[in-house]
Amino acid sequence: MPYSYLQLVERIDVVPYRHELDVFSAFRSRVYRLIAHDGKQPLGYLLPCIVTELAQHPDIVVVDDFARTVQLHPGLKTEKERNEALSDLASQWREENVFETLKGWRNELYTIYDNTKKPYMRLERALCPLLGIVMYGCHINGYVKDEETDEIKLWIPRRSATKPTYPGMLDNMVAGGLGYPHGCFDTCVKECYEEAGLEPEYVKKHLKSVGMISYLYQKSMDFDSEDGLIQPEVEYTYDLKLDKTVIPHPVDNEAEDFQLMSIAEVDKRLRNGEFKPNCAGVIIDFFIRHSIVTPESEPDFLTIVGKLHRLLPFPLR
Amino acid sequence: MPYSYLQLVERIDVVPYRHELDVFSAFRSRVYRLIAHDGKQPLGYLLPCIVTELAQHPDIVVVDDFARTVQLHPGLKTEKERNEALSDLASQWREENVFETLKGWRNELYTIYDNTKKPYMRLERALCPLLGIVMYGCHINGYVKDEETDEIKLWIPRRSATKPTYPGMLDNMVAGGLGYPHGCFDTCVKECYEEAGLEPEYVKKHLKSVGMISYLYQKSMDFDSEDGLIQPEVEYTYDLKLDKTVIPHPVDNEAEDFQLMSIAEVDKRLRNGEFKPNCAGVIIDFFIRHSIVTPESEPDFLTIVGKLHRLLPFPLR
Repeated sequence: MPYSYLQLVERIDVVPYRHELDVFSAFRSRVYRLIAHDGKQPLGYLLPCIVTELAQHPDIVVVDDFARTVQLHPGLKTEKERNEALSDLASQWREENVFETLKGWRNELYTIYDNTKKPYMRLERALCPLLGIVMYGCHINGYVKDEETDEIKLWIPRRSATKPTYPGMLDNMVAGGLGYPHGCFDTCVKECYEEAGLEPEYVKKHLKSVGMISYLYQKSMDFDSEDGLIQPEVEYTYDLKLDKTVIPHPVDNEAEDFQLMSIAEVDKRLRNGEFKPNCAGVIIDFFIRHSIVTPESEPDFLTIVGKLHRLLPFPLR
Repeated sequence: MPYSYLQLVERIDVVPYRHELDVFSAFRSRVYRLIAHDGKQPLGYLLPCIVTELAQHPDIVVVDDFARTVQLHPGLKTEKERNEALSDLASQWREENVFETLKGWRNELYTIYDNTKKPYMRLERALCPLLGIVMYGCHINGYVKDEETDEIKLWIPRRSATKPTYPGMLDNMVAGGLGYPHGCFDTCVKECYEEAGLEPEYVKKHLKSVGMISYLYQKSMDFDSEDGLIQPEVEYTYDLKLDKTVIPHPVDNEAEDFQLMSIAEVDKRLRNGEFKPNCAGVIIDFFIRHSIVTPESEPDFLTIVGKLHRLLPFPLR
């Protein structure tokens, strides 16, 4: 049974909305909220198995099992103190093999923001999913347009079979995490070169920022294992219209190959579930902006657009 | 002090989000929820001054002052029964001059949907704002693009000084409500002809569906008068790129005139508050999709995109 577009979106926007009262309550009773050291600002959702480990460190967190909150210790008043405390903890967990997720250690820092958009802390990228805090990426739709017929085709890579996450699945032309201290546009230009061999000067000239998608992801509804981690995510979206003579090709072995696919082919593979889930969301957003999916063609048009742009209940950059 | 883009968006997306716990509670304590006859499905938010009048009709609604809900009477089991009961009530209110809002009577039906997207009832357009239920419109960005320089200009009309709502303010090139039984695309084609004198054949060929904006509007925070009505709204958005030789012109006196404005000029007038509030939201969405507003240029980029696509907590068409 092929996926509908709404089902594809609901594969990434998994966590219930607060106005779905009963189902949200059920979700809320299974998780903890991570709260800033001020005791006020929510930063993310935590699984009980993470809280159990955090609770061993009363110098870093204050756990309230009744309110189901985990507050960063009020003494962690500066960014530096928070960075050090959590970095030491992550290193210890990694050494002791406490969490599978930390095997993806990158030596790459992610910035977490406070509600005034100031950096609140900077953490190793592999730690962030464990804390259920917002993570940011950039995704680029690479396409070719026939100016005579207006027909659009998309450049679609297949992820390398050796990638630790979603091996062998279809992807957006180029995508990358937004690691400190890089900005969105610069990250795109860098990744276009590294992942697809596209010349920076060419990309800078043609790359268009077109918005973002955001959602509250949970890979599996298993609240007792790392597969059930709650992941609030933002993907900045870009369109890059390529001349017919510009051919993306694998450079850093992130991709097996690139294929130029018709809309009908991309549609078929989307509905088959062949795309990495968040890349499917980016393509559906592309289809909506380019009049390929319309209110007349798609019965769940409004719900899809709403769910693809969820206002996350945590501070954003 | 000019408006920021976030402030312009917050002028239409006014009602607090449920995750803003305290401020949402304060809002919730000032309004009632309109619930379908099944006692389950929320349909809208009601002001106390509307509930007082509804409560006079126990054959139509069941008011619960403790839960702050107004349920349509369980006996109103069919669409026909609901249409008749509410239509009679609206006519009575109109005759007795109970509500200022009903002076905008249009003899135009709006469809309210249930959560399976079936029509739940059809009501006179002027009644809908009193019931706080979702209303739909279509807004068209008309623009000209210089293919040499990529420079975009927007066709901006000024609303007629005699319009009952937002007279004299700036607007999107064409906009209209989605009255029964018309679809989005057809409504756009019709309104382009009626409001701007654009030929249907030309519009059908060039009009592009590009998404929607949605928000929970409240004109004034005065919960004791019709100025404070809660209005969940969806505007389907369209782009229409016009050839330089195609000039929109007022036909039905909705618009005083049309001006072709540079991005800088539109930006200045947006920040001055010269646009009808929801039209400002449509233009900011246009700016984001066209790479005019980017993550680098706009500090509130993510919050703006999220708030412009609010998943409304009511059934959608």
